[in-house]
Amino acid sequence: MATNHNHLVIMAGGIGSRFWPMSTTEFPKQFIDVMGCGRTFLQLTFDRFEGVVPPENVWIVTSQKYKDIVREQLPEVPETNVLLEPCRRNTAPCIAYVAWRIKMADRNANLVVTPSDHFIVNQKHFQEVIKQALTFTSQSDAIVTLGMKPSRPETGYGYIQADMSSPSLKNKNMFRVDSFKEKPNLETAKEYIRHDDFFWNSGIFIWSVSTIVNAMRIYAPEINNIFENMQQVLGTKDEQEWIDREFPKCPSISVDYAILEKAEEIFVLPADFGWSDVGTWGSLIQLMKKDANGNAVVGPNVKLFETTNCIVHTAMEKKVVVQGLDNCIVAENNDTLLICKLSEEQRIKQFSED
Amino acid sequence: MATNHNHLVIMAGGIGSRFWPMSTTEFPKQFIDVMGCGRTFLQLTFDRFEGVVPPENVWIVTSQKYKDIVREQLPEVPETNVLLEPCRRNTAPCIAYVAWRIKMADRNANLVVTPSDHFIVNQKHFQEVIKQALTFTSQSDAIVTLGMKPSRPETGYGYIQADMSSPSLKNKNMFRVDSFKEKPNLETAKEYIRHDDFFWNSGIFIWSVSTIVNAMRIYAPEINNIFENMQQVLGTKDEQEWIDREFPKCPSISVDYAILEKAEEIFVLPADFGWSDVGTWGSLIQLMKKDANGNAVVGPNVKLFETTNCIVHTAMEKKVVVQGLDNCIVAENNDTLLICKLSEEQRIKQFSED
Repeated sequence: MATNHNHLVIMAGGIGSRFWPMSTTEFPKQFIDVMGCGRTFLQLTFDRFEGVVPPENVWIVTSQKYKDIVREQLPEVPETNVLLEPCRRNTAPCIAYVAWRIKMADRNANLVVTPSDHFIVNQKHFQEVIKQALTFTSQSDAIVTLGMKPSRPETGYGYIQADMSSPSLKNKNMFRVDSFKEKPNLETAKEYIRHDDFFWNSGIFIWSVSTIVNAMRIYAPEINNIFENMQQVLGTKDEQEWIDREFPKCPSISVDYAILEKAEEIFVLPADFGWSDVGTWGSLIQLMKKDANGNAVVGPNVKLFETTNCIVHTAMEKKVVVQGLDNCIVAENNDTLLICKLSEEQRIKQFSED
Repeated sequence: MATNHNHLVIMAGGIGSRFWPMSTTEFPKQFIDVMGCGRTFLQLTFDRFEGVVPPENVWIVTSQKYKDIVREQLPEVPETNVLLEPCRRNTAPCIAYVAWRIKMADRNANLVVTPSDHFIVNQKHFQEVIKQALTFTSQSDAIVTLGMKPSRPETGYGYIQADMSSPSLKNKNMFRVDSFKEKPNLETAKEYIRHDDFFWNSGIFIWSVSTIVNAMRIYAPEINNIFENMQQVLGTKDEQEWIDREFPKCPSISVDYAILEKAEEIFVLPADFGWSDVGTWGSLIQLMKKDANGNAVVGPNVKLFETTNCIVHTAMEKKVVVQGLDNCIVAENNDTLLICKLSEEQRIKQFSED
């Protein structure tokens, strides 16, 4: 496997509304040092592929308004590899665009497509899994999804059901996907995890650029045609002007619906490297280092008294004192303050809009 | 009574440490619009004397570092009437200084001395009481204290016991002071309010400038001598230089200890105009307008959900959302945030120092 055909696509166009006010439309979650570790989620995603994908093969697809943030946070990535969507159209148009763009640069490219705001615990294990998948897709027209071994009946994730009876001949760790399952209710989730053929859908996909383009041609021609017709301008100075005009014509649809659920040659590679989509404050607090009272804190000068099981994220405040709270979120950013019970976090989007 | 001999002395040198972080050493409580009414405590104190004391007879004694704040908040007061202490020496040196300064300007001056950070409900009644007291002290060498009719066994205030058997012949509402009582414990406070001769000590005094100077000469000569020796420079360009050198030599002592407890001709004028020294968040919340859930809020954009009996003072934040709190203080100022139970507010000074 030639390393220089490995490419990484980081989708970084989300707005992270569930983490308001830490995350805002102007500066969403993926660009924030959420964990207080010194690196933003976008940077951690980039770091995770060190030694697997060279920086010149890393592609970021994001909104035009985040261009400067991306450039500042990942100066290693060439400016021409930062692709700018003029509007949000979910993941299928995003992936079609970047696939055609990469195809023009390297028609033998082999791609990992990943969200920019997930968390992975064991980087070494993660890289081993990614390398297996890249080897597999470099030798076949398969699409590989990474399936996480579920540790609890999570209702916030989609699930992948695998056909465990027929592992791939090329890699016995790979199984054909039987079906994709939407986020289940708790009863269904409990049923899923009683079986060993259900996995959390990580949203990380591995496939060669020719596989993507062929899949787009077959399953999403109305999207594919827009970019295929644009081949000659991709990588030229006219690219952005064309994208600004043509991209909004794409239907807004996820790659899961548009491609993955319809594709024939689709496999799941079960893995257990410790993964979270960090979709809620509750999932974030689980990942963070906690004090003896179960509090997770990010902020330059935060003092807690008689406070338990709280998450305090107040990076912009000079000094914070919290006394007497339990199971709360305290989040401050950009002169905006939220204090609410962790149990009520599904209302945060409403709070931010009121 | 010639109006133009009425003078007002506002003592505005405190640091308001119990209201951190709303109040800070750099910008203490008396300079803040604590109630969210559009005027600071200092301005409200000034406003309260409209029609009784002309602005050119208003004197502010404060710390040098608050000079610009005072000038900005009370531009009506002449710059030469803002006296600047180089260090804090409690109230006796403060009053001796301003008394000598006023004496040089108006030897028939009749003074009201008041803190800058108290709250008074009924301004009309307050002015009637003040006018009675000024009339009384313009015709005698008496010192008049305003005694508040107690509404509860408050342990945070000092008390004045009056000799109710002998009202003044000049004004039957005035009674001689029997004794001053320090802040009592609850049991003692309950005993006090069972009798009708105990009053809260408001810290507001009325006396003529000659009465003050004579009392200082008799009871606090070590303080008086410093300013009496300085007579010729008071009101000249050399005043500040002398004050900076001599004022620190004063002992730090309250006017209560130095003068009032020793004075012979001292009266209390009982009053009931609604008064609070606003010494605690708990007393502040009692004074403020509250919503149906008992919350008092100051801030440009504060939204509360399932929140009860809280005080939220977040004037610097652009937006605040609080959900699920009860009986808490949420105070933000100058990039510093405090969240704590109202019941723990006596620990705020410790919180601010930690």
